[in-house]
Amino acid sequence: MSSVPTSDFSDSSLSVIWSCPRVGDIHDANLQERVQHKLDFKTKPVGSLGVLEQQALRMACILGTDTPQLEAPQMVVFAADHGLAAKGVSAYPVDVTWQMVENFLAGGAAVSVLSRQHGIALNVVDCGVARDFAVREQDPEHKLPQASEPRLWRRKVAYGTADCSEGVAMTAEQCAHALRNGAQLVKSLPGNALLLGEMGIGNTSSASLLLARLCGEPVQEVTGAGTGLNAEGLARKIAVLRQVLDHHAGVSDPLAVLAAMGGLEIATMTGAVLQAAAERRVIVVDGFITTAAVLVASRMQPHVLQRCIYAHRSGEPGHQRMLAHLQAQPLLDWQLRLGEGSGAALAWPLLQSACTMLNEMASFESAGVSTKS
Amino acid sequence: MSSVPTSDFSDSSLSVIWSCPRVGDIHDANLQERVQHKLDFKTKPVGSLGVLEQQALRMACILGTDTPQLEAPQMVVFAADHGLAAKGVSAYPVDVTWQMVENFLAGGAAVSVLSRQHGIALNVVDCGVARDFAVREQDPEHKLPQASEPRLWRRKVAYGTADCSEGVAMTAEQCAHALRNGAQLVKSLPGNALLLGEMGIGNTSSASLLLARLCGEPVQEVTGAGTGLNAEGLARKIAVLRQVLDHHAGVSDPLAVLAAMGGLEIATMTGAVLQAAAERRVIVVDGFITTAAVLVASRMQPHVLQRCIYAHRSGEPGHQRMLAHLQAQPLLDWQLRLGEGSGAALAWPLLQSACTMLNEMASFESAGVSTKS
Repeated sequence: MSSVPTSDFSDSSLSVIWSCPRVGDIHDANLQERVQHKLDFKTKPVGSLGVLEQQALRMACILGTDTPQLEAPQMVVFAADHGLAAKGVSAYPVDVTWQMVENFLAGGAAVSVLSRQHGIALNVVDCGVARDFAVREQDPEHKLPQASEPRLWRRKVAYGTADCSEGVAMTAEQCAHALRNGAQLVKSLPGNALLLGEMGIGNTSSASLLLARLCGEPVQEVTGAGTGLNAEGLARKIAVLRQVLDHHAGVSDPLAVLAAMGGLEIATMTGAVLQAAAERRVIVVDGFITTAAVLVASRMQPHVLQRCIYAHRSGEPGHQRMLAHLQAQPLLDWQLRLGEGSGAALAWPLLQSACTMLNEMASFESAGVSTKS
Repeated sequence: MSSVPTSDFSDSSLSVIWSCPRVGDIHDANLQERVQHKLDFKTKPVGSLGVLEQQALRMACILGTDTPQLEAPQMVVFAADHGLAAKGVSAYPVDVTWQMVENFLAGGAAVSVLSRQHGIALNVVDCGVARDFAVREQDPEHKLPQASEPRLWRRKVAYGTADCSEGVAMTAEQCAHALRNGAQLVKSLPGNALLLGEMGIGNTSSASLLLARLCGEPVQEVTGAGTGLNAEGLARKIAVLRQVLDHHAGVSDPLAVLAAMGGLEIATMTGAVLQAAAERRVIVVDGFITTAAVLVASRMQPHVLQRCIYAHRSGEPGHQRMLAHLQAQPLLDWQLRLGEGSGAALAWPLLQSACTMLNEMASFESAGVSTKS
């Protein structure tokens, strides 16, 4: 076993630096019944808007009202580098992480384009990218952010994780720091909806490792080509991941697993998810990596899942398995495997439609339409 | 056999009143290659935006450009009544057709709400509703229509079809009239995208009949609960549809089948689809009934299908079968079964996203991002 610092979350001193938000049960049978009644008396056959009705009900329950309004949606793209990338688990060089952060900010990436299309504020968080970004005038530290321009949040915990095939990816302190960063960032964001995105060369490896360990899935069945490995590359990736799992054989506590094999972007996102859930924000989950953060968060606070909506089922094989563990019904099945939050931004107007339908459609009575004979 | 007028489309005089638009082949290998190249050099792994990339390519091919822009989208809801409804094939009374037309115009129906959300102009066409609508100041005959308010187009061919279990639903002249109305209406509409919607109590019966006859499907397998029949109602509906098919046993020509068992809204829509296809508009198909119009149109001009995008796979069992015959890949699988065009309006922003992605995303070169190692 490794001699580098371990992620000992049994150390009680850690509760001082990371106090997990409490996420309560929001089930409200009375509200649910009221919303269902409203849906059933809209001018349409009962249930005929299928998933759109289910989503309207979900949003009403999350926001705790029978007139749910989505406000000031915040896309947050969590970015970090991975020490494991040195072992050749990705088809792309590690520089792509910081280059894509620049691309997000410049407005040319998929998540930039789709967020702009839908008026979603774009926040990019440097959680642990292996490079320093130049200070920009529009950084939120300098002036009040404007919704129309992407913002860079500097929350770097380290210049990437350590290589988790040789030790823990992050120390317990680093992990707690990242978790706290995520929670505090969400606290400072307006609106009632959080869309999750991520960037980090090597992070499908972390997602596969978290799934394998936390859900007991065979690693070879939940590891995919990521950004585009060929068969040989995939075999190498699986071999490396096996080695990582062996190295951390005894680790099973969710936070310890996160610190041992996760990424700084996943840890920061986990903190963000917990905070957003505690505040009853609608959490729009993107693909494999963002779902991994939700998985970790839900192991700490199971009611997190009541607030999550899954934008799509990705082309990455582990994602389907992960969604099944979370009993999640994704909105789109579009073979997306880009990440960034692109799927969450793409699906966003469908959620707006669900609210708009519930709030604006007429009832049989108000429209003077005859009911079923 | 019936003694009422037959739909004899072999009568050469009909070509005078209905001259079918010619829909040419738009396949362009060169354009397709150019668009694919553009997609492949966007800042993302090749193919990682899955269906979004496919749709961008589709839209580029339909509009004949590698920078496709969707402009002034037109939702057209074709409404008419069905003589067959007297045989108890629907869960709702026939008055619901005109009541829903009023609801579309008043802005309270699902298609109204979703069209408004996305800035889609809403056109409602009275193709054959069994009631006269009051003249309204905002009718297009009175003044230039404004995109923000729903428009009623008066294109009534009759006060509903005749009962097709006892004769033809419409005469050849009526059918040709409806086809021509649809084509002329599309000619007068701005923009380059047509979204199809419909309303007509009893029209899932027509769609099932068209599918059964034109594709040789067993009627009991392609007939569903429509707006919400119970098991007994469904059995009665299937028995009635069998009787209709027996009555028109010899009819197989697509237009003759349309006239014998279709609806005035389906015939008008068929004309609209043919005209829109001839003009290379993007045609966004909704559910079972609108797909039936596309099926009929494609039997006259097969290249119609090159212009069609299918918004969703509906909960109506015949729809899945029909989509398979058309080799269609729907965008959403949301168990929608409302019709009206609600699914087409819901899916609209996904198509906008496909164009926006193709037009606005940076390339690896322009963004300075490293390519695959």
